[in-house]
Amino acid sequence: MTYCLGIKIDQAIVMVSDSRTNAGVDNINSYSKMWRFNYQNERQFVICMSGNLATTQAVIAQVEKDIEKQSEVSLISVASLPEAAEYLGKVSVKVQQNSLQTRLNIFEATFLLAGEILGAERGLFMIYPEGNFITPSSKHPFLQIGEVKYGKPILDRVMEPHTPLEKTILCGLLSMDAAVKSNLSVGPPIEVCVLKVNEINTNHYFYFEEGDQYLQQLRVSWDTYIHEAFDRLGSFPWSV
Amino acid sequence: MTYCLGIKIDQAIVMVSDSRTNAGVDNINSYSKMWRFNYQNERQFVICMSGNLATTQAVIAQVEKDIEKQSEVSLISVASLPEAAEYLGKVSVKVQQNSLQTRLNIFEATFLLAGEILGAERGLFMIYPEGNFITPSSKHPFLQIGEVKYGKPILDRVMEPHTPLEKTILCGLLSMDAAVKSNLSVGPPIEVCVLKVNEINTNHYFYFEEGDQYLQQLRVSWDTYIHEAFDRLGSFPWSV
Repeated sequence: MTYCLGIKIDQAIVMVSDSRTNAGVDNINSYSKMWRFNYQNERQFVICMSGNLATTQAVIAQVEKDIEKQSEVSLISVASLPEAAEYLGKVSVKVQQNSLQTRLNIFEATFLLAGEILGAERGLFMIYPEGNFITPSSKHPFLQIGEVKYGKPILDRVMEPHTPLEKTILCGLLSMDAAVKSNLSVGPPIEVCVLKVNEINTNHYFYFEEGDQYLQQLRVSWDTYIHEAFDRLGSFPWSV
Repeated sequence: MTYCLGIKIDQAIVMVSDSRTNAGVDNINSYSKMWRFNYQNERQFVICMSGNLATTQAVIAQVEKDIEKQSEVSLISVASLPEAAEYLGKVSVKVQQNSLQTRLNIFEATFLLAGEILGAERGLFMIYPEGNFITPSSKHPFLQIGEVKYGKPILDRVMEPHTPLEKTILCGLLSMDAAVKSNLSVGPPIEVCVLKVNEINTNHYFYFEEGDQYLQQLRVSWDTYIHEAFDRLGSFPWSV
């Protein structure tokens, strides 16, 4: 399994991904699920991925090949973020079609795409296995792929378009931590990438290994505060 | 969908269930998913259920019929809680087998069974559609059925066998609230039943309608405290 999320706030887009892959409980591995690309400080993209590992690797390989070969359509030729999402969807569908499909849906993959192109509107998209895509709602400015449910309550509670950037990163890490805590198939290293508005030249990237001191301290603090919040709720008001 | 949970602590077993049923988004209804039974203050059972509504209703009808007819095996004849769980599993399998199965698994149902029999060990079980069953682990003393993921983080964080009863009820309500908040197909009325150790004569039962003032206040308080806890985390320590 996998858990990746993208949060689009006024100041930036924050992408967070785990790195655990599993094909059965005795075949656990660690692969980055975040692909980052900056082109001449004129455009940058971050892609996070979940689903069949062979599909996601083949899709990224094709994306890189199209860039390298300067294909007619590639991430360096598209003029807007929706065009980039459409392109990624097409590559994904084609890769899935190339596989020998003996079992339904087994080669499916889902992607999050975030990016900025100088002079164009920045964007965050979720690209479905069928190649179509959506943007986040304005009220709940995030998209999730993979093992999404455990980490959703904290996002639902806290995230708004105006949430400050540093708080947004924290919220993303807490959401990831909830998934890691409740599902063995989501795990570190955790990657975070921040695309700040109008800062295509800087790629704010953070990498947290297993046992990272900051993440551990964040987990302990949050756990303590949640327990304190719980204690403040008082007692159940009826006699039992 | 549905969300029900059972928590087994030293002092009691706490059962919580929602009441929303849906067969498509245009066919939403409200049914109690909690069945309570007390027999001569010698034994009591609470059953919570998720899955196909026709199956769960037929199962409960059969359970009631077996009691009424004083069948050879029924909830008033079984000598222990595991026997009760086995009986319920058999009834469930039989009901599913009686249905015309045109589509795989469509008539499946899952049950939580909690109970006490005078002189026997109390018990909490989850009964799978296949009729087999499990008890909660000693470290994480709860079982969930239906839409379980949203409400699991708070249980994982807070619940222990020694958690006091009143706190356990609160935790159950917060877990339910997380599911209600994040999934439209889980909704009120919320039912809570407490089976206190060695108190077969008392059935502590609470019923919270949609818009219930206490539940609303609990949600607002929790939301406030979570935000305050989040604010206490401080800032992300690296420059972005």
